[in-house]
Amino acid sequence: MESVLRNTLCLLILLFLSWQTSYSLPRSSMVAPSFLNRFLRVPSKTISAPKYKYQIRYFQQRLDHFSFADLPSFSQRYLINTDHWSGPSRLGPIFFYCGNEGDIEWFAANTGFVWELAPRFGAMVIFPEHRYYGESMPFGSREVAYKNATTLAYLTSEQALADFAVLITELKQNTSAQSCPVILFGGSYGGMLAAWMRLKYPHISIGALAASAPILQFENIVPLDTFYNIVSNDFRRESVSCFNTIRESWDVINSVGMTKSGLSLLTKTFHLCGELKSAEDLSDWLDSAYSYLAMADYPYPADFVMPLPGNPIKEVCKKIDSSPNGTDILQRIFEGVSVYYNHTGKYKCFNIDDDPHGMSGWDWQACTEMIMPMSSNRNTSMFPAFEYDYVSDAEYCYRNYHVIPRPTWITTEFGGHDIKTALGTFGSNIIFSNGLLDPWSGGGVLENISETIVALVTEKGAHHLDLRAAMAEDPDWLVEQRASEVKLIEGWLGSYLKSKEIVHLESAVQ
Amino acid sequence: MESVLRNTLCLLILLFLSWQTSYSLPRSSMVAPSFLNRFLRVPSKTISAPKYKYQIRYFQQRLDHFSFADLPSFSQRYLINTDHWSGPSRLGPIFFYCGNEGDIEWFAANTGFVWELAPRFGAMVIFPEHRYYGESMPFGSREVAYKNATTLAYLTSEQALADFAVLITELKQNTSAQSCPVILFGGSYGGMLAAWMRLKYPHISIGALAASAPILQFENIVPLDTFYNIVSNDFRRESVSCFNTIRESWDVINSVGMTKSGLSLLTKTFHLCGELKSAEDLSDWLDSAYSYLAMADYPYPADFVMPLPGNPIKEVCKKIDSSPNGTDILQRIFEGVSVYYNHTGKYKCFNIDDDPHGMSGWDWQACTEMIMPMSSNRNTSMFPAFEYDYVSDAEYCYRNYHVIPRPTWITTEFGGHDIKTALGTFGSNIIFSNGLLDPWSGGGVLENISETIVALVTEKGAHHLDLRAAMAEDPDWLVEQRASEVKLIEGWLGSYLKSKEIVHLESAVQ
Repeated sequence: MESVLRNTLCLLILLFLSWQTSYSLPRSSMVAPSFLNRFLRVPSKTISAPKYKYQIRYFQQRLDHFSFADLPSFSQRYLINTDHWSGPSRLGPIFFYCGNEGDIEWFAANTGFVWELAPRFGAMVIFPEHRYYGESMPFGSREVAYKNATTLAYLTSEQALADFAVLITELKQNTSAQSCPVILFGGSYGGMLAAWMRLKYPHISIGALAASAPILQFENIVPLDTFYNIVSNDFRRESVSCFNTIRESWDVINSVGMTKSGLSLLTKTFHLCGELKSAEDLSDWLDSAYSYLAMADYPYPADFVMPLPGNPIKEVCKKIDSSPNGTDILQRIFEGVSVYYNHTGKYKCFNIDDDPHGMSGWDWQACTEMIMPMSSNRNTSMFPAFEYDYVSDAEYCYRNYHVIPRPTWITTEFGGHDIKTALGTFGSNIIFSNGLLDPWSGGGVLENISETIVALVTEKGAHHLDLRAAMAEDPDWLVEQRASEVKLIEGWLGSYLKSKEIVHLESAVQ
Repeated sequence: MESVLRNTLCLLILLFLSWQTSYSLPRSSMVAPSFLNRFLRVPSKTISAPKYKYQIRYFQQRLDHFSFADLPSFSQRYLINTDHWSGPSRLGPIFFYCGNEGDIEWFAANTGFVWELAPRFGAMVIFPEHRYYGESMPFGSREVAYKNATTLAYLTSEQALADFAVLITELKQNTSAQSCPVILFGGSYGGMLAAWMRLKYPHISIGALAASAPILQFENIVPLDTFYNIVSNDFRRESVSCFNTIRESWDVINSVGMTKSGLSLLTKTFHLCGELKSAEDLSDWLDSAYSYLAMADYPYPADFVMPLPGNPIKEVCKKIDSSPNGTDILQRIFEGVSVYYNHTGKYKCFNIDDDPHGMSGWDWQACTEMIMPMSSNRNTSMFPAFEYDYVSDAEYCYRNYHVIPRPTWITTEFGGHDIKTALGTFGSNIIFSNGLLDPWSGGGVLENISETIVALVTEKGAHHLDLRAAMAEDPDWLVEQRASEVKLIEGWLGSYLKSKEIVHLESAVQ
């Protein structure tokens, strides 16, 4: 009863705010940051020539697995490769990547680890696309699917997991592979899905590698300021003066941006293609760059969300710190973020007018289930201080989608509070891998929960680096981390095969 | 893709059958038998003076937990008693009964075990009602809720489990009981819910007693003829001649029932209130009696689905066997089933024209998710032989509800196939209790799955007898079974408290 009252009260407040206000709240306090850069201009068809070989197939899915409402089904895209599969008679494993918030071909291209492992394990590889992303659109088109809350209603993580469960079950049936063990993989939100899938559907898979999965970044399970503290520390460890310059820049931007001529100056300094409308827009653009730099602070050049040099934060700070004495702070900041936004040097100007009302899938998810509260702490963060503000988040969500967030749903459905007690004697075979440079590691599982639900933590790792293809430049710790993962997966498969009384263990696994 | 084709094909076949046929298929081959007697005439308000003390409360629930569709919420009824609760500071446990397909007050009255245990454990007791049953009606009334497939769409087990999860979470929050351990209880379908709840929401409860929960009665996990074989064996073990008499009776009924005068004779012999319309109706009525007698074959008089004497099958067979030589077989059968339908002797005649189109909640569930295939085997069963016929089931469901069953959904969502492999190293703290006289035990978990997911099997037990209140007449094996259950629950609580570093173990548990 109380929750009804609370919801009703909340709705009334939101409606009041909606009516009363027309200004836009600063983005940094609104809904959970997305894992993927919303300033990223990914062409709708990112992968012209796929890095890895696969077939593209489609599978018809129910829109709502958990009701019998008469809704149209939709076509889920998935990528599949069976070239190396040792087949059902040898219980060849199935490597299943839990598709996350984007085009699945893009994730496939950036998850070399799974492709490289497949021949070694005689594994089939499947990359299913997450509903409402890429080509897997309900209602026939993205335009209709993203039209409003009624059509977006079924974009939830539980529905996505059920899609995966139904897909695996049918595929196994069709290939007589019912007894073949499934190993789940996933990074970021996909890692959360992999972990939750293993927990919710233990009969479907025998283990999961959940890379950089912040399943504890909900409610107050971890301190709200952890994300921005980690980003800030990543900069401070490279250079205290760089950290300080960034920290001081916000006030300068705000004060310069108070006048029209000041906005023109900012537009010019930051080489923006269009006239800057507010200082907040610029701050958001910078905030985003710093956060993604922290996520992608890899030890070698990589092109995950953006083409970046190795150790990009070091490079950013080098630029900020090494400008000639007397260089304007704004110019320093521009030089720094250019490492992020323009490493290739191909942009003459930058387009930052991201439509705040644009309906991206993650924005919807962050407005419904994925309520990941964050704050920025004046003492430890290089970002402007702000408190988490549920009401302003909810107002944003109601205004944009006419939907009211359910901030306690994820922990009710998937747990998270006191996870060590809940899973200490329940569940098995999950690897939570995290790199401590990654700001999302603050919401990750960083300690072993039990003998078989384990944490692999690397001090110098960033956002699911372990899932990427092996490189000549890989540092030892990364090689070791991947070896540990392989060993654990081998162990799961070995136990499974043993339980199936298959003695040809070596030949099947090797 | 194949599943779409299959579904479409299936639908076309159904529509064709729908158009072509107007006859009614024999009930025994249609949809899963309900756990509760559909011939039972339970007054809408069964419990005038509750046996146990509780408060009745209501809690507002989402209609679809797994989407953000704009649907009306509904009011879920629950019973609560905190008289014996030792409170949050002592981590007093919460005993939570997973309400099943009926009025929750009726289950509360018939689940004395939970009430009797509560003072001993210092436990709070909660009996939530299952959505779409009793007073917990979406759309304001039973009439609207049961109107059609659109309104019934949200009557699913997953939604019911989510109701439970949300309710527990909110109640704990409101009583500062976040750390208090929850023990789940449930019998029959409620036992299935208890087991599934423990598996799907391990962060919500620490253990579950799933009594007579046939979670394996899906697809081909267990032999399809197991249910009717067990019923038949229950009769054969009392008397081979009784078994044979029943076995021979069907042909007699059918041949007599072929003419109008024959139907009149059957009407008179079986003391029916209204004129019998077909022999099948009578066969259904008898089939139902035998099945429920097997479920309720308790060692002492009880009033669960019907007031019955102790060892009711023995009594039925006594009547059938002891009629004077030369007594007509139909008369013998009538004398026998009168033990079931009229033990109190208060009925002058019997009303058997159960409306086959009547929308009972279980009928809907059996037409959507709860597809429990059954057959009757000529060699081992006393019932007429029949094969499981999915198409006729689906036709029945489409005709009555315009819904197409999802026969593989439950095992996709909850597992069941090769359960020992799936849960051997996953999950903990579930008791599957089964009595082998109970025909549902054929679909139950009868062997330990792991050290902590255990089977308690009693040779002489029937349908979740262990959940009933203790009686002076309880046989030793039942007393021992309950003691084992208590000991296991104590163990779960002890480990939990230990993990919480509460040393006052004895005082908290004792």
